[in-house]
Amino acid sequence: MGYRVITAIAVALLLAGGAAQAELRGTGDLGVVVQREAGRLSLVETSNRSVLAEIGGLGDLSHASAVFSRDERYAYVFGRDGGLTKVDLLTREVVARRQQAGNSIGGAISQDGSLVAVSNYEPGGVRVFDAETLEPVAEIPARYGDGERSKVVGLVDAPGNRFVFSLFEAGEIWIADFSNGDDPEITRLRDVGRKPYDALITRDGRYYIAGLFGEDGLALVDLWHPEDGAREILPDYGRGEERLPVYKMPHLEGWALAGDYALLPAVGRHEVLVVDRDNWEEVGRIPVYGQPVFIMASPTGREAWVNFAMPDNDTLQILDLESLAVAQTLKPGKGVLHMEFTPRGEAVWVSLRDEDEVVVYDTATRERVTTLRVDTPSGIFFTDRAGRIGL
Amino acid sequence: MGYRVITAIAVALLLAGGAAQAELRGTGDLGVVVQREAGRLSLVETSNRSVLAEIGGLGDLSHASAVFSRDERYAYVFGRDGGLTKVDLLTREVVARRQQAGNSIGGAISQDGSLVAVSNYEPGGVRVFDAETLEPVAEIPARYGDGERSKVVGLVDAPGNRFVFSLFEAGEIWIADFSNGDDPEITRLRDVGRKPYDALITRDGRYYIAGLFGEDGLALVDLWHPEDGAREILPDYGRGEERLPVYKMPHLEGWALAGDYALLPAVGRHEVLVVDRDNWEEVGRIPVYGQPVFIMASPTGREAWVNFAMPDNDTLQILDLESLAVAQTLKPGKGVLHMEFTPRGEAVWVSLRDEDEVVVYDTATRERVTTLRVDTPSGIFFTDRAGRIGL
Repeated sequence: MGYRVITAIAVALLLAGGAAQAELRGTGDLGVVVQREAGRLSLVETSNRSVLAEIGGLGDLSHASAVFSRDERYAYVFGRDGGLTKVDLLTREVVARRQQAGNSIGGAISQDGSLVAVSNYEPGGVRVFDAETLEPVAEIPARYGDGERSKVVGLVDAPGNRFVFSLFEAGEIWIADFSNGDDPEITRLRDVGRKPYDALITRDGRYYIAGLFGEDGLALVDLWHPEDGAREILPDYGRGEERLPVYKMPHLEGWALAGDYALLPAVGRHEVLVVDRDNWEEVGRIPVYGQPVFIMASPTGREAWVNFAMPDNDTLQILDLESLAVAQTLKPGKGVLHMEFTPRGEAVWVSLRDEDEVVVYDTATRERVTTLRVDTPSGIFFTDRAGRIGL
Repeated sequence: MGYRVITAIAVALLLAGGAAQAELRGTGDLGVVVQREAGRLSLVETSNRSVLAEIGGLGDLSHASAVFSRDERYAYVFGRDGGLTKVDLLTREVVARRQQAGNSIGGAISQDGSLVAVSNYEPGGVRVFDAETLEPVAEIPARYGDGERSKVVGLVDAPGNRFVFSLFEAGEIWIADFSNGDDPEITRLRDVGRKPYDALITRDGRYYIAGLFGEDGLALVDLWHPEDGAREILPDYGRGEERLPVYKMPHLEGWALAGDYALLPAVGRHEVLVVDRDNWEEVGRIPVYGQPVFIMASPTGREAWVNFAMPDNDTLQILDLESLAVAQTLKPGKGVLHMEFTPRGEAVWVSLRDEDEVVVYDTATRERVTTLRVDTPSGIFFTDRAGRIGL
């Protein structure tokens, strides 16, 4: 074997991406499962329902979440410890990592895929990074009053290369518009309500809704008309309604938006609230097994799967969204933490933290089709989120 | 260099996918543009807005359409000449091809990604193939009356591994359920209306709507309740309303479904019909520049882009979906054939057949950002369709 042949092979390897161990494959059926305790990701694929690899070196991954690059090759993982990690799903390695704050809570990727933003508790504000290199692009200190910095929560992306987020202590919602470059134009909406603690955005990117810890009700912003400010909806929503013990404030990303309805976890009650999306008024309640945490609607809009806070976190219920009633109750195992539907909804993946298992259900038969071994699984994120607004 | 090293390199190459010239990359930002005359595809990517390659050997591609494998690596291209071609977007080559009928019109991929179906005029029926190998799996002859075979149109996938399609001469809609294997269970809905010529399915896979060539009105099937059969909606919709010359029967896939509305091209009139999706009744009409062909709604639901039949096919109009009025009129060039939004809606790609150009518009500024040279471009299809029901 001559030198030229070897060179040709080396060039071929380079052209194959430079990472000889990487598999040439599509990335539309990939996903990551966060291993809460181990600080690792399990790389999974939904076609044959398997774990492809484990990827470590991501720091503290309790409450971690992930977004994806627009080509669905890279995951950006936001750790509770302020770490931001970029993972290559093809070479299966960490390609960039930045300890960008002391304490943070989630992030987002811009509509055009060029910017990754992280919302921080300490120091309070938003930091924005180049999605390719993770080099800093912008810093938005969340100052209010006499210049104190507020914790930032509920950060999402919105159309027009905007990020929207809430300031916990300040009681404000800010819109940072990056459509004219790296120096964002900031719109401040003041007095939106006391202590916004989390938020969601509708799938079309129009409505931003923040939950309030300091009072009942929710703050809604129509992003087609930010000049109108925030308005209060569902004035009875919250803990004030009835003084039950609350084991876990439900995440607002646990809302389901399906057809004409939004489905909300009632706070402290064994109920799912059904809200009319035309006027944001409550139209009904579905009694459920425990205090709902996540309510995930199928892409078909026909059903939603609900998990529950302790001590009912061994149970899943399936809501039929035509009759607005519980269709089935499942007992998958201990520590049901998260559910994720495949893009077309033929399956749902469920993480069972205390069983060290991820279970895959067929949504037609509601039978387990696969059980995967994953160490303390929590959040499950599939790459189709790359193409969706607000995820 | 010893034998073992060379073997190691060979193994590495194999692991890299066996195709040394292929680039290791994500597939979430890829797409194909059909070159109508040349029978080729242009492989494109939306991150840097470029043409990556041209792929030939696909036969007659007039009126061709494409669907994608669930991993977004492969495109399945349906030619008007009955050819079904599987293209690897990473190695950029045809990996399987089958002349499966004499004359066909579109196809679909099953919810689980395992089956590809093609609707045929000659011989009339549906043929179903293994998505991996393109080996035949099932044949559904569209027999009616005394055993004649009907042309099949409006084939889509639906949740529950079903395909739904319409029989032109028979005036029937069939549902083929493959959830129990390769021998489908067929549900026949009879007397749905005269000569269904095309159909669409709503994004959640619930409503199937067929246009009728033989009478006014449309046939609607609620796939949550196929036992209720088809019912007529919009009884005035069609050519009967006013006897204007019709230059092109609008494709029903040209409907936009946005928020509470469906937007339909009026047949033979310079109007877009606005229909309430709750009761499928007409609530208004938007006067437009010509006879609308495709009405594509942005993923944000805030606007729709409309193109027109000859002689107005040099024009695009942007409809504002809040005011239900024309917001802007653009003159991109001759032969505006198709538009496709990027998954999060920051851009829209437009094919200009007679200019041999694909133009990319920024949806925020409505300015051209890129012009790509493509020979006689027609349909544009991005890989995010893999994750969507009915596409």
